[in-house]
Amino acid sequence: MTSFSLDEKLAADTAFVCDLPLSRVLLMNDARFPWLVLVPRLPDLAEINDLAASERGTLMEEIATCANILREVAPSDKINVGALGNIVRQLHVHVVARVEGDAAWPGPVWGSGTAKPYDENWRRGMIDALRTRLGMD
Amino acid sequence: MTSFSLDEKLAADTAFVCDLPLSRVLLMNDARFPWLVLVPRLPDLAEINDLAASERGTLMEEIATCANILREVAPSDKINVGALGNIVRQLHVHVVARVEGDAAWPGPVWGSGTAKPYDENWRRGMIDALRTRLGMD
Repeated sequence: MTSFSLDEKLAADTAFVCDLPLSRVLLMNDARFPWLVLVPRLPDLAEINDLAASERGTLMEEIATCANILREVAPSDKINVGALGNIVRQLHVHVVARVEGDAAWPGPVWGSGTAKPYDENWRRGMIDALRTRLGMD
Repeated sequence: MTSFSLDEKLAADTAFVCDLPLSRVLLMNDARFPWLVLVPRLPDLAEINDLAASERGTLMEEIATCANILREVAPSDKINVGALGNIVRQLHVHVVARVEGDAAWPGPVWGSGTAKPYDENWRRGMIDALRTRLGMD
């Protein structure tokens, strides 16, 4: 039996926020977009259909929670949710706060331009704000 | 009280497949990608969070069903799922079968190139195949 381990590229591109009951929550290191990534902490997942129905229900609620919290901590005209996996196959769900006129508007964030790393203090403050609202403090 | 009506751009870009308990299922008129769009048939929805939790659970299962059926009827290396809404604000979820090397690979389909309309006979056959598997025949 294999255990969960986070894909190396996902780990390199993000910072740890917290673990929800099913998913690990990560903050993408791209200051252009407030952008969370949820990774269900189960081994060998690539598609949403690799989850059991009850796990899919939990994932959906964790997506909704993260979407709400992103809207509380960051400006947002629209939340974008996506599970693509064309490059990183480990199942992961993007939850991104979009603002009209942002660096990729109205296109998708995936594959758009080059990530702009966070100032480290800003990132720490954002992670603290997210953790507090996710009840992890 | 307003009732459900399909956004005009979504209607123009797609063909009707069937109505599931929550969502209208549409086939995007783009032969480059086997591409379904699910539109919950409730008024005034823009975000996943505008649905009740039970409705979100139903939506997730309808996404999973459509993903499975797309994989049955079309070649697929990866299923992409996305709810963006930057251009069309009515809540809708894309479920797209991707093949390595397809016209947008490994990038997202949204905003990529120009749609290639289906041959009408091919499209009719695909819609019939989808309806049969969705139990709508």
